[in-house]
Amino acid sequence: MKLIPIEWTENNLLKILDQRLLPEKKDYIICKNREDVFHAIKTLAIRGAPLIGIAAAYGLFLDVFINQNLDIKNLKNRLIETGKYLKSSRPTAVNLFWAIDRMLNFVKELNCVTVSEFLKLLLQEAKKIHEEDSNMCNKIGEYGEVLIKNNMGVLTHCNAGSLATGGIGTALAVIYKAWQNGKKFKVYADETRPLLQGARLTVFELLENGIDDTTLICDNMAGFLMKKRKINIVITGADRIARNGDTANKIGTFSVAKLASTFNIPFYIAAPFSTFDFNAESEKDIPIEERNKEEIINGMGKQTAPLNVKVYNPAFDVTDNELITGIITEKGIIYPPYRENIEKYLQL
Amino acid sequence: MKLIPIEWTENNLLKILDQRLLPEKKDYIICKNREDVFHAIKTLAIRGAPLIGIAAAYGLFLDVFINQNLDIKNLKNRLIETGKYLKSSRPTAVNLFWAIDRMLNFVKELNCVTVSEFLKLLLQEAKKIHEEDSNMCNKIGEYGEVLIKNNMGVLTHCNAGSLATGGIGTALAVIYKAWQNGKKFKVYADETRPLLQGARLTVFELLENGIDDTTLICDNMAGFLMKKRKINIVITGADRIARNGDTANKIGTFSVAKLASTFNIPFYIAAPFSTFDFNAESEKDIPIEERNKEEIINGMGKQTAPLNVKVYNPAFDVTDNELITGIITEKGIIYPPYRENIEKYLQL
Repeated sequence: MKLIPIEWTENNLLKILDQRLLPEKKDYIICKNREDVFHAIKTLAIRGAPLIGIAAAYGLFLDVFINQNLDIKNLKNRLIETGKYLKSSRPTAVNLFWAIDRMLNFVKELNCVTVSEFLKLLLQEAKKIHEEDSNMCNKIGEYGEVLIKNNMGVLTHCNAGSLATGGIGTALAVIYKAWQNGKKFKVYADETRPLLQGARLTVFELLENGIDDTTLICDNMAGFLMKKRKINIVITGADRIARNGDTANKIGTFSVAKLASTFNIPFYIAAPFSTFDFNAESEKDIPIEERNKEEIINGMGKQTAPLNVKVYNPAFDVTDNELITGIITEKGIIYPPYRENIEKYLQL
Repeated sequence: MKLIPIEWTENNLLKILDQRLLPEKKDYIICKNREDVFHAIKTLAIRGAPLIGIAAAYGLFLDVFINQNLDIKNLKNRLIETGKYLKSSRPTAVNLFWAIDRMLNFVKELNCVTVSEFLKLLLQEAKKIHEEDSNMCNKIGEYGEVLIKNNMGVLTHCNAGSLATGGIGTALAVIYKAWQNGKKFKVYADETRPLLQGARLTVFELLENGIDDTTLICDNMAGFLMKKRKINIVITGADRIARNGDTANKIGTFSVAKLASTFNIPFYIAAPFSTFDFNAESEKDIPIEERNKEEIINGMGKQTAPLNVKVYNPAFDVTDNELITGIITEKGIIYPPYRENIEKYLQL
C-alpha cells in the first residue's frame, strides 16, 4: 500500500496520517500522549474501526511509556483509567473496545519484575495487534476475492481500505486481491456524506494502488445504478456486528443494503472477528453515535445550509442481518443463519 | 413567499435570483437578452422545472423586444430560432419545452398589424404563463394538503418550492398549505447531492416562511429514518412525467421512492400538468442529463476527491410508476392506473 495511516516510530511516538486533510494534503500528527491519541480518534483524524483499535493499543503504551517513573502496580492502574478514557472517544466501533480490553487482559496476566520489561512486553502486544490486523486483512481479501468475477460492477460505501486498517483493508482487501489475481471489473464508490470518506479516502487509495476503473458517485445515485444493472455486488466494512449478524456501519450502508436486496444484488460485509460484539444480541444493543450539525452544514469549507436549521447526523446505521448475503472474515465467509454460524466460526 | 426567484421589471428586464449563491448571499442576475437567460438556466442560477419554463417564456419576449426594429415576419422567425436555442439549455425538464411551445403556438396564431401590438401581446402571454403557474401551485397545495395529518414526518427531496416555481411551489405547496391550515408536523429535507438544493434552498425557504420544525439530513440517512418509523409520507416534485406515470426528478428520488415502497410509506409526486410529456410513453423515452464531474469533486469550494477520478453524475433519475402512490396536480390527485387516469384528468 502506498500510504501508511499509522506508524510506531523508533523514538516511541505514534505517527498518524491526518485523514481529514486527504486527498489535498498528506500531513501527519505526532501523538506524544494519550490525549493526543484520544483527540485524533475523536476528531476523525484517524478513523476506520480496525485502525482506531490499533491506535488505542499504542495509546495505552504511550501513557505507560511517559509515566515509566511509576511502579508497575501504579502503571497497571493507570492503564485501566487510560482504557476507560480512550473508550470514550467513539461509542460505536467495537474494535476500539476489543483492542483496549485485549491490552488490559494481557497486562492483568503479566508478572514483570522490572518496568522496562513491562514496557517491552506491552509494546510488543500493541505491535502484535497491529501485525495481526494486517494478516487478517490479507485473509479477508483472499476469502472474499472469489466473489468478484470479470466484468462485474462492485459497489462499496465509506472507506474500509488500507486507510481504515493496519493492512490492505477489509472490503477493499477483497478488491485488491481480486485485482492482483488479474480480474478486470469496475469499482463504484459512494462519496459517503457527510464526511466524504468514499470520495476522499476510498477513491484516493484505489487510484494510488492502481485500481484505475474506479468511478465516484454520490450516495443517492447507487439505487439508480442498481436499477440500470450496473452493480453486481456490494461490499462494505463494519463497525460492530451483533451475535445475530445485525451490522452497524457508516450511515448510508443500510439504504444501500436495502436497495440491493430489492434488486437481488448480493450484499457482503467484510470485517475481522474483532468487529463482532458478543455482548450485543442484535441491533437494539448497538448504540449509534450522533455527531454535530457542523459536519453537514459547514463541512466543506463553505456554508451549505442556514445555520439555524435542525440537523440529524447519525454517524452509523444498522443493517438487518436478513439483508446481508454473507460476512467475509479472516476465517472464511459466514452465511446465514448467522447466530449459529458466527458461533461456529468463532470456535475455528 | 419571502423570496421571489423571478421578476419581470418595469424597464423590460428579467431579474433572476442567483440560486447558486443561496443561502449565503441574495444576489440577482439581470437578463438583458436570450443569451443571459440561456446561461442562467444552463448554469443553474435559475432552476426548478416550472420556473425555467417561465424564464424561457420571458427570454423569448426579451429577444423580440431588443430586436423590435425588425418586422413581424422576421420576429416570428427569430422566435422559432430562439425557442430552439433556449430548449437546448437543459434536456430533461419538460416544462421548458412546454412553455416555449406554448409561446410559439400563441405567436403562430397571432395576426398583429404593428410590432408594438405584437410585443404587448407576447409579453402578456409570458406573464400569463407566470401567473397561471402561481395559481397552479395554490391548487396543488390545496389538493395535496389533505394528505398531511398532525404529527406526521414528511420527507422531501431536492427543491420543489417557491424557488422552483412562479408561486408557492409544488411539493412544498402541499407543506405550506397544510401548515397554514394549522397542522403540526415535522419536515425532513434531503440535502440532495451534488448541488445541495435541499440544504441550500428547501431548508432555507421553509425556515424563511415559518415552517420551523424542519430537519436537514444527508440523502443517505432517509432510509434509516424510514426504518425508525420517522417518515410517514414522501412528497417530491417532478421534471418530466411520461404517459404511464414514470417520473423523472432530481437524482436520488428513485432511491427514496424505492426505499419508501419497502416500508409501505406513501410516495407522492406534486407537479402541474405542464410536467407531463405526452410524447413520452414511459421511462425509456426520457433523456437523462449528465452533468460535469466538477459538481461532485469540487462543488463546494473545496476539492473532495482526486481530480483524475472518473465520476458518474446524472442530474435526474426515473421513478417507476409502480412506486408512486399518487400524482398531485392542479386538477386533483391522480391515482393508478396512471395511463388511463392521466388521460382522464387531462380532459377535465
